Amino acid sequence: LERATGWIDAHARGLAAEDVSLDDATGRILAVDVAAAIDVPPFDRASTDGYAVNAADTMGAGAYNPMIFRLIDASSTADPSAIGAGVAVRVAAGTPLPVGADAVVSGELAQETRDDLLEIIEGLAPMDNVERRATHIRAGAPLLAAGRALGPAEIGALASTGVTRIAVVRRPRLCLLHAGRDAGKAPLASSLALNADGPLLRALVTRDGGMVADHREIGSGRVAIREAIAAAAGADAILVTGGTGFGSNDEAAAALAETGELAMHGLALRPGGSVGIGRVGTTLVFLLPGAPASCLWTYELLAGRAVRRLGGREARLPYPVRSLMSARKIVSSIGFAQVCPVRRLGDDRVEPIASFDEAGLFAATMADGFVIVPEGSEGVPQGARVEVYLSVE
Amino acid sequence: LERATGWIDAHARGLAAEDVSLDDATGRILAVDVAAAIDVPPFDRASTDGYAVNAADTMGAGAYNPMIFRLIDASSTADPSAIGAGVAVRVAAGTPLPVGADAVVSGELAQETRDDLLEIIEGLAPMDNVERRATHIRAGAPLLAAGRALGPAEIGALASTGVTRIAVVRRPRLCLLHAGRDAGKAPLASSLALNADGPLLRALVTRDGGMVADHREIGSGRVAIREAIAAAAGADAILVTGGTGFGSNDEAAAALAETGELAMHGLALRPGGSVGIGRVGTTLVFLLPGAPASCLWTYELLAGRAVRRLGGREARLPYPVRSLMSARKIVSSIGFAQVCPVRRLGDDRVEPIASFDEAGLFAATMADGFVIVPEGSEGVPQGARVEVYLSVE
Repeated sequence: LERATGWIDAHARGLAAEDVSLDDATGRILAVDVAAAIDVPPFDRASTDGYAVNAADTMGAGAYNPMIFRLIDASSTADPSAIGAGVAVRVAAGTPLPVGADAVVSGELAQETRDDLLEIIEGLAPMDNVERRATHIRAGAPLLAAGRALGPAEIGALASTGVTRIAVVRRPRLCLLHAGRDAGKAPLASSLALNADGPLLRALVTRDGGMVADHREIGSGRVAIREAIAAAAGADAILVTGGTGFGSNDEAAAALAETGELAMHGLALRPGGSVGIGRVGTTLVFLLPGAPASCLWTYELLAGRAVRRLGGREARLPYPVRSLMSARKIVSSIGFAQVCPVRRLGDDRVEPIASFDEAGLFAATMADGFVIVPEGSEGVPQGARVEVYLSVE
Repeated sequence: LERATGWIDAHARGLAAEDVSLDDATGRILAVDVAAAIDVPPFDRASTDGYAVNAADTMGAGAYNPMIFRLIDASSTADPSAIGAGVAVRVAAGTPLPVGADAVVSGELAQETRDDLLEIIEGLAPMDNVERRATHIRAGAPLLAAGRALGPAEIGALASTGVTRIAVVRRPRLCLLHAGRDAGKAPLASSLALNADGPLLRALVTRDGGMVADHREIGSGRVAIREAIAAAAGADAILVTGGTGFGSNDEAAAALAETGELAMHGLALRPGGSVGIGRVGTTLVFLLPGAPASCLWTYELLAGRAVRRLGGREARLPYPVRSLMSARKIVSSIGFAQVCPVRRLGDDRVEPIASFDEAGLFAATMADGFVIVPEGSEGVPQGARVEVYLSVE
């Protein structure tokens, strides 16, 4: 498994950038470091609704000594001399401080009277209720680093600095090939077997930020698989499911070896030991077993790792990890890295449930999380702490 | 804040169900309990590629004593008498066990010879390499409960039981109204202010499983806001941003009070104290402050809670929570529930960073998480354990 992930990390490099509109950037991965393009706020501005004045003019104002100001329209302040002694300008929170003003009195401490006059009942200090230019962020300051996932706050912060288009990592384009069984070989199955792998893989690829550009049923013979792989080599990665003949994945593995490079075939992994990994040119190819539980875990640990890396995301399994206590022994076969489904007992403990061998893909829906017992271990003793990948928080 | 969330929980009930194709169901919320429609496997089937035989016929087989079988096509087994003594049928993993067979020998322990004969070199017990019908799940057994989020494993499990369409909770339809400033009131701002709230709210609503059905700029006057709210009352919820006149959110609040019910206006919350909550008929209306950081947190704590509940999701903030140690005192104003951005120091500690007052929305992009200090507290002392909502894992 370690050698397989090493091979993937060496061959799945982040894809190139593409420019998208900010509206389409949610959930994407930033391709470049971004600095703030402008000061925020871009000017000294009112931080409350009220009236802009010169603070010095309010000295001595109080409830029993209101100071009277002449109230003018903000548009008059195009003339810098307009806001002189004894003049107030109506402002809303967020609007620029008029030239000549250095403070804002909030609406609650002032009273408009007839004849465009304003009474102010509290003295102000300079910059009271004023947000200084660039206090949130200064133009040129680092804003977001390449590799950052663009969530709501990042999208909002970019919009705040005037960004409307942004460079993100291109989404990996996947081709899914479902190798059927040759009609001659096993006709009984064709009408009865339900293909869960297609919906399963589409959902997994979407979760990992990839897109399924092509999704086809193909024959199971070596020639059919080889030709389908060759035809799909424009994708960033190809996932072949099923198509196993006699022996594990022989036909698919042989087909890949004939078209490109079969780097690895068969891993000490349960479920999913018959997986194959390789490439055609720069296109990565994963040969996933057809049994849904095997398909799930060879995707999660291998193909998904490649999809996540191609898309500039973190390579690790996209489940939160917690160190929890094993309430019962978790049994695993020595010689195989084994994925063991567990159920949570209260906040701090887990117990094993029916394995993927016993319950197939349903082990995943019945589990609250998974323990990956390494190849050299026979399992986890009762009472031991163990890292659990939580599928349900 | 508690009273506000109580009001939301009382008025934001889960929406009705709609049927969608399984391909479109990823990330949606299941509206009904689902039981398995069929047995999985639906029949006794081969668990490996190989040859189906009657186990009794292999008794005594060994490397030095191969047993010879007559190899026939699976299609011949339409006749139940076909697999009698000394007959083997080629099967692939996952295909049904032919009538009359009770075990499968794997390809490695058998050898096809000329003349359609097969040599088997190991004895089998009944059900060797056979997966019994219904061992993964039995028809009628509970599969997924209403309220379950449909991730890849759930989609795969539903597909495994033959489901192609599924009842999910309808997505909440949101209307966003950005109340501008009246040209007469504050003309200086109109050309300079960058609207971050629109992109921010679109990303938040999408994250919470809602859809923005309508998104409009409107005037800031009471009449304009009132008419826009009335026109949008077909949505499941309306988010009004900005439109504050003198006093906090007066125009929007007054407009809502005139059209429907203004249930609450002003909360002891920082940022976001000027928020308003109410409804028009059954449509929930949230009056969110225009400052982006206030818009973010009034969405997260109030409007987003409603969106999540309408869509059948968990109401709580969608951030993982960890109990971490405060490496420095986290200061908060008594009398206000305050959202304090923090940076993580190593695995177990956090320290406060520039507040939302100081850094606006950029406090959210610079933070690794948030601490919500309750109204009655002055903050968190150095060295204390505190619940941190992690925005970056």
